Amino acid sequence: MALIVQKYGGTSVGTIERIRNVAKRVERFRDEGHDVVVVVSAMSGETNRLLALANDMTPQPSARELDVLVTTGEQVTIALLSMALQSDGYDARSYTGAQVRILTDDAHGKARIQEIDAKRIRDDLAKGRIVVVAGFQGVDGEGNITTLGRGGSDTTGVALAAALKADECQIYTDVDGVYTTDPRVVSSARRLSQITFEEMLEMASQGSKVLQIRSVEFAGKYNVPLRVLSSFEDGPGTLITVDQEDPMEQPVISGIAFNRDEAKIIVRGVPDIPGAAYRILGPVGEANIEVDMIVQNVGADKTTDFTFTVHKNEMEKATNVLKNIASEIGAKEVQSDASIAKVSMVGVGMRSHAGVASNMFKVLAQESINIQMISTSEIKISVIIEEKYLELAVRALHSGFELDKEPFEAK
Amino acid sequence: MALIVQKYGGTSVGTIERIRNVAKRVERFRDEGHDVVVVVSAMSGETNRLLALANDMTPQPSARELDVLVTTGEQVTIALLSMALQSDGYDARSYTGAQVRILTDDAHGKARIQEIDAKRIRDDLAKGRIVVVAGFQGVDGEGNITTLGRGGSDTTGVALAAALKADECQIYTDVDGVYTTDPRVVSSARRLSQITFEEMLEMASQGSKVLQIRSVEFAGKYNVPLRVLSSFEDGPGTLITVDQEDPMEQPVISGIAFNRDEAKIIVRGVPDIPGAAYRILGPVGEANIEVDMIVQNVGADKTTDFTFTVHKNEMEKATNVLKNIASEIGAKEVQSDASIAKVSMVGVGMRSHAGVASNMFKVLAQESINIQMISTSEIKISVIIEEKYLELAVRALHSGFELDKEPFEAK
Repeated sequence: MALIVQKYGGTSVGTIERIRNVAKRVERFRDEGHDVVVVVSAMSGETNRLLALANDMTPQPSARELDVLVTTGEQVTIALLSMALQSDGYDARSYTGAQVRILTDDAHGKARIQEIDAKRIRDDLAKGRIVVVAGFQGVDGEGNITTLGRGGSDTTGVALAAALKADECQIYTDVDGVYTTDPRVVSSARRLSQITFEEMLEMASQGSKVLQIRSVEFAGKYNVPLRVLSSFEDGPGTLITVDQEDPMEQPVISGIAFNRDEAKIIVRGVPDIPGAAYRILGPVGEANIEVDMIVQNVGADKTTDFTFTVHKNEMEKATNVLKNIASEIGAKEVQSDASIAKVSMVGVGMRSHAGVASNMFKVLAQESINIQMISTSEIKISVIIEEKYLELAVRALHSGFELDKEPFEAK
Repeated sequence: MALIVQKYGGTSVGTIERIRNVAKRVERFRDEGHDVVVVVSAMSGETNRLLALANDMTPQPSARELDVLVTTGEQVTIALLSMALQSDGYDARSYTGAQVRILTDDAHGKARIQEIDAKRIRDDLAKGRIVVVAGFQGVDGEGNITTLGRGGSDTTGVALAAALKADECQIYTDVDGVYTTDPRVVSSARRLSQITFEEMLEMASQGSKVLQIRSVEFAGKYNVPLRVLSSFEDGPGTLITVDQEDPMEQPVISGIAFNRDEAKIIVRGVPDIPGAAYRILGPVGEANIEVDMIVQNVGADKTTDFTFTVHKNEMEKATNVLKNIASEIGAKEVQSDASIAKVSMVGVGMRSHAGVASNMFKVLAQESINIQMISTSEIKISVIIEEKYLELAVRALHSGFELDKEPFEAK
C-alpha cells in the first residue's frame, strides 16, 4: 500500500492507443492497492503543432500568451487519460497545474515551483480516486498560467511526489533504465538496478540524457526516491537513491559518461604571474561562453600553458575573444582543437577507494590512448582524449572496470 | 468612449489569417478610443476534432473530463488573438473562463452562469489593455472546469457585457444582421436596423437561427443592448433592444419566420367531455414529445377534433402513443400529416394595431392558400398551411405587409 507518482512523457501518450496502455499500467498499480497520481505531458507532436500556430501568428509571441497556448497540450492528455481510466471502471479525476494548484514564480516559459497545495489530491486519493495531473504547467500568484520549460513534466512529477511525501516517483520513458554507459557504444552495457542522485547528476550532465537534471536535483533535495522505467516494456528500471552510508554496498564505479560536444582552447606561453588566469577567463565569461574543464601547469621556464574546454559551437568565438588578450598579457599564441572527446568515470565508491584514477590511466595506456587533460572531483574522473579514440576508450574502460558484470550484491 | 464587448464565433477565427482580421477590427474600435473586451470561440473544426478524440477513447466520456478537453479549444484562440494584437503593438491579455472568473453551477456540458468577477477585466481596461476572454467556459465553486453548452460563447459575451455594464454587446457572425425573413426565400428581404428582444426570441424560436435563444433571453433580462454584425464585411448590423415605449416608432410587423420541421396530429371525433384534452396530451408529454401548437373546436354533434403539432421526427411516436388512448376515450381515429409548414408574423407593433390577423388571412386567401390551424400570441400570429405553399405564402405576406420597404423612420 504505497503512494506512487508516475510520470509519462509525450511518446508514452502519443496516441489514443498508447494512452489506453498507460491507463492499463496505472490500473495494475491501483489493483495492487497503491494510491496512484499520474503526471502526463502533451501527446507527442502536440506542443510543436501549437508552437507552429504561434509562429504562424507572430515571430515573437509574448511568453505569457505562449504559456496559455501550449498548456492546452497537457490539458488534452489529462482529460483523455481520465476518460480511459473511467471507461475501465476506475474513479479518476484530472487537474491542470492551476487547479492543483502548483504555484510558481512568474517567469513564463521557465517558471520555478514555489509551493504545491496537495489538499485536493489527498482528498481524492482518500476517496479511492486515481488523480491525473498536467505536467509542465503551473500558475503564478496572480492566476496567470505558467510553464516550467521544456521537459518540465519530470519536475512536476518529482515536486508532486515531494509535496505528497510519495513512496516513489516513477518516470516512464522510452528506455528501461540508466545504463553503465551508452549501449550503442558498448553492447555489454548493463542496466543499473540503482544509482545515487549525485552519480545520476554527473551521468546526466555528462551526456546520459535520461532525466532532466533539474528534476534529479529536486528529487535529491527533497529525498524523493526516483525510478526510471520503460513505458513500453515491463521491468524494474533503475532506482535513484540517496547516497547509502555503507560503502561496502557501493560499487566503485557506476558508469561511464562521454561527450563529443566540447572543444579545447590552449593559450600557450602565459607568463606565470598572479592574475593571468583571471585575465584569460574573465573576458570569456563576459562573452557568456561556458567553460567546462580548466587545466594549468607551470613549466620550468616560468611560463605556463593554460588550457580549457568550451562547447564546440563557441570555440571560434572564444578563440577570437582571446587573440587580443593573449598579446596583452604576453602569451605566445592561442590554439584550438575541436577533435577531442571527454570520457568520465562516475561512482560514489571512488570516495573510499584509492587507485581508480591510476587504473583508468593504465587501461587507456594499454590501448595507447594519450590523455590530453585530466579533471577530478569526489565522485568523477574526466579525461580529454583525441575524438577518434572515444569508442575504443569507453569499451576498454567498461571491460577494464568489469562494468558488464553485476556488482557483488546485485538486487 | 464606450465599453464594447465583441464576440466572434468559430468561423470568424477559423484560421490564423481570420484571427488577424479579427485583431484588425478590434484595433479599429480601440483606435476610436473605446474599451474593448473580446470573447472568442474555438477555431472552427477544433471542437469537433477534440470530440472525435474523446469518442475514439470511449463512447461515453464523463461530462467533467469532456469539459476539460473541449475548453482547450477556446484557450488556443485567446492566446493566438492576444498574440496578434500584441504583434500589432496593442497591449492585450487573455483569460480563460476560470481565470476571469466566470462562476457557474456544476452542470458539466450545460452549466449556467451564476456570477462574474469582473475586477481583473476592469483593472486591465483601466490600464488601456484589450481583454480577450474564452467563450463557452466557466468554473464551478469547486474549481472544476465547466462549459455552457454548444454555442455558449454568445452567452459568455452577453453575461460579460452585463457584468461590466457595457454600452453594447456585439455578436459577429457570418450574416450581416437579422432580416425580415430568410433572403433565400424572399430576395427582397430587408436587414432590420433594429428589433426588440421579444421579437428576436419569436423569430429565433421560429427558425431564424442567428443567435442563441438563451443569450437573447439573458440580454433581455439584464438589459444589454445586443448587436448582430458580420465579421466579414462592414455594416451597422441589427441592434436588439428593449421594447421601446413610443409605439409610433414600432413597425407593426418586424419579420416573418417559418418552419418546415413540424407535423400535425389530429384526433378526430373526441367526445366533448371534461378532461379529454388532458387524457390526450398527458401521455404525449410523458413520452417526452414536445408539443407546439394546439387547436380544439367543438362541433355541433358534441364531439371535437383535437389537433396539435410536434416535430416531424416524433410524429410516428406520437401517433402510436395516441392509438390506444383514442379508443379508450371513444374518439373516432388518429390521423397524422407531415406535409405542413408553419408561417409566423412577428411584431411588437401588433399589440397596438388591430387587424394584423385579418390582413394576414386576406393575403393568404388571395393566393388561395388554405389555413389549417391558427395560433396567436401578443406579438405573433402563426398559421399552419400545406407545405408546398410555404414559399408562396412567405413572399405574399412579405410584400403584402410591405416588409421590403423601410419603415417610416428607418435608421
